[in-house]
Amino acid sequence: MHANVTAALERAALHRTRFDSRFEQYFDGLGERFDVPVPSRYVPRCLELLREFSMRGGKRLRVVLLYEAARLVTTDEVPGLAEAALSIELLQTHGLVHDDIIDDAPLRRGGPSTYYAYRREFPDHGATALGLAILAGDLAAFLSTQVLLEAEAPAELRQALLAVHTRTAAETVAGQLADLERDSHALPDEEFLHTVTDFKSARYSILAPLTMGLLAAGGDPAPHRARLHRYARLVGIGEQMRDDFLDLFGPFGDDPADEAKSTGADIRSGRRTYAVRALLAAATGAEAALVEAALGDPDCPQATLGRIREIARGAGVDRRLKAEIRRYAEEASAEAASWGPYWREEAVEFFRSLPLWHVARMS
Amino acid sequence: MHANVTAALERAALHRTRFDSRFEQYFDGLGERFDVPVPSRYVPRCLELLREFSMRGGKRLRVVLLYEAARLVTTDEVPGLAEAALSIELLQTHGLVHDDIIDDAPLRRGGPSTYYAYRREFPDHGATALGLAILAGDLAAFLSTQVLLEAEAPAELRQALLAVHTRTAAETVAGQLADLERDSHALPDEEFLHTVTDFKSARYSILAPLTMGLLAAGGDPAPHRARLHRYARLVGIGEQMRDDFLDLFGPFGDDPADEAKSTGADIRSGRRTYAVRALLAAATGAEAALVEAALGDPDCPQATLGRIREIARGAGVDRRLKAEIRRYAEEASAEAASWGPYWREEAVEFFRSLPLWHVARMS
Repeated sequence: MHANVTAALERAALHRTRFDSRFEQYFDGLGERFDVPVPSRYVPRCLELLREFSMRGGKRLRVVLLYEAARLVTTDEVPGLAEAALSIELLQTHGLVHDDIIDDAPLRRGGPSTYYAYRREFPDHGATALGLAILAGDLAAFLSTQVLLEAEAPAELRQALLAVHTRTAAETVAGQLADLERDSHALPDEEFLHTVTDFKSARYSILAPLTMGLLAAGGDPAPHRARLHRYARLVGIGEQMRDDFLDLFGPFGDDPADEAKSTGADIRSGRRTYAVRALLAAATGAEAALVEAALGDPDCPQATLGRIREIARGAGVDRRLKAEIRRYAEEASAEAASWGPYWREEAVEFFRSLPLWHVARMS
Repeated sequence: MHANVTAALERAALHRTRFDSRFEQYFDGLGERFDVPVPSRYVPRCLELLREFSMRGGKRLRVVLLYEAARLVTTDEVPGLAEAALSIELLQTHGLVHDDIIDDAPLRRGGPSTYYAYRREFPDHGATALGLAILAGDLAAFLSTQVLLEAEAPAELRQALLAVHTRTAAETVAGQLADLERDSHALPDEEFLHTVTDFKSARYSILAPLTMGLLAAGGDPAPHRARLHRYARLVGIGEQMRDDFLDLFGPFGDDPADEAKSTGADIRSGRRTYAVRALLAAATGAEAALVEAALGDPDCPQATLGRIREIARGAGVDRRLKAEIRRYAEEASAEAASWGPYWREEAVEFFRSLPLWHVARMS
């Protein structure tokens, strides 16, 4: 298994490098895709911020999934794939720019969120900064549609890719609405958290890239929808639990990327995540009261967060969450392992090993 | 001319009625267009607010322009036209929902803005209301793309309509960015105001409906792009000047729709509109200082607004603006009058008379 994971990681790195250079090119040519008002300072600045944010793109997991999904069918270059990748990442930019307004988040991807970049540029005009950030996110959304429309691919393929894109985008917004709803529940039930994860992230981060990759490669994803969705949901839930674990407890293995993330943001923002939910379900009496008081308090001190972490560890929340993360990864892996009859062996193996990447580093 | 205007108004009313019932149907079937999380209260509430806001749609000028543009080519029913109308109005909903966040506007179309509807529902959770309103606007944007994708029309037509839609949407965002930029200038030059109007409203409100109507009817708008854009820009500038006049001076004729609009919002929000710009250019000394102090003061008292209005009248701003509005309407009308060689007489006459509707009521 370890050799497979290494091979998969190497392939993922190649997809990433290739995509990033394509993404640079896209931004270089963006000025020819639509007219912009001249003279204007705000419009070029907005495009610059979108470019800078989009290129600070991290793991490009969606792009990797997309390219590997095409390899389920063929290793040939396939038309439409590059544009599908651009579209997915522009949609991601759209979502994150607006998310960071909604969460009032200063940081993203190791730099300022677009909202906070604008707030720094307009320190005395909060409303202007908010407006500019909303518009930047809107622009990214329309660009993510436009790039697919202009794909050099047969019209039916373009249409099919657009249908997946647009439906997924609408479902993702529905998931974000449900995510805000989650935090209005004192103790949301776990099934609701799964639904939120499915809509808010599994569909656009995993299911859509899988579906679009198959489509571009000439495959018909329709008969496989249930198995693709099962895989997406399992990987999505596992990844979400992992994010939520990291926010409460910090790194759980030796992955250096985890070290940089700070903890406690979910508590301070009152987000009833998988980890927070498990903690709320386990705590009683004075401990429960302490957690409830901290939830949604933006100024909750580090010492209190430390105390909450101890309470959570004492109740075995970390242990149980790790076991769940492992279970979801293994179920996702098993799902992919059953794909042998339909698709190319080597790519199936990629999807089988992918959910185990993080679990392998789990201490 | 008067008989022509009456005939045109009657035809516009028919387009409107027909469209409104089609729009209701669209919302009735919306639940089948994408999955929604179940159970959820926030998602159905969002759809309900979008429906309610969209149906409170006023004049539907864009829809009327679209249907009449098809009649430039044919009076037959043409495929794709109904979906183009839905798409345009959903894009309008998207834009207004986000605009009302950006402008912090409580009212729109004679009812609460979506943002303020949410603020009323979450009086103690401003951040939640903001987040929900941003998401509502995002959803409308994706729905406006999706409805075109699902048009019962040939694939090439769908593709052409989508290309106009998406490019226009991006250009409109660029116009909204430039609109915010306008207010950062002490005295923006008039050419810049024209550019803002072109991008922020003329392209999506006039040029896009014209282009899409021609496309749906089987016409090729490409060779006519310059004349369509000229018309759109002239009508757009005239309409924007009229809005700006109304906000500073109140109704200028006997149109009952104007009576309901309150005045002074542009001054209070610091918007350097055509009317405000003309006032700033004309005022000097203590009067100029009074206007500058009022600009951007949300609590500027009615008495001060009244005084500013007097200053503006004293400087002849109202008279000059009316003359400009008349001039733009007449130039737009003359532009349409030159379309005779290309298109059906009766529809050309519609576009010729349309810019004069308001001017005819001007006292």
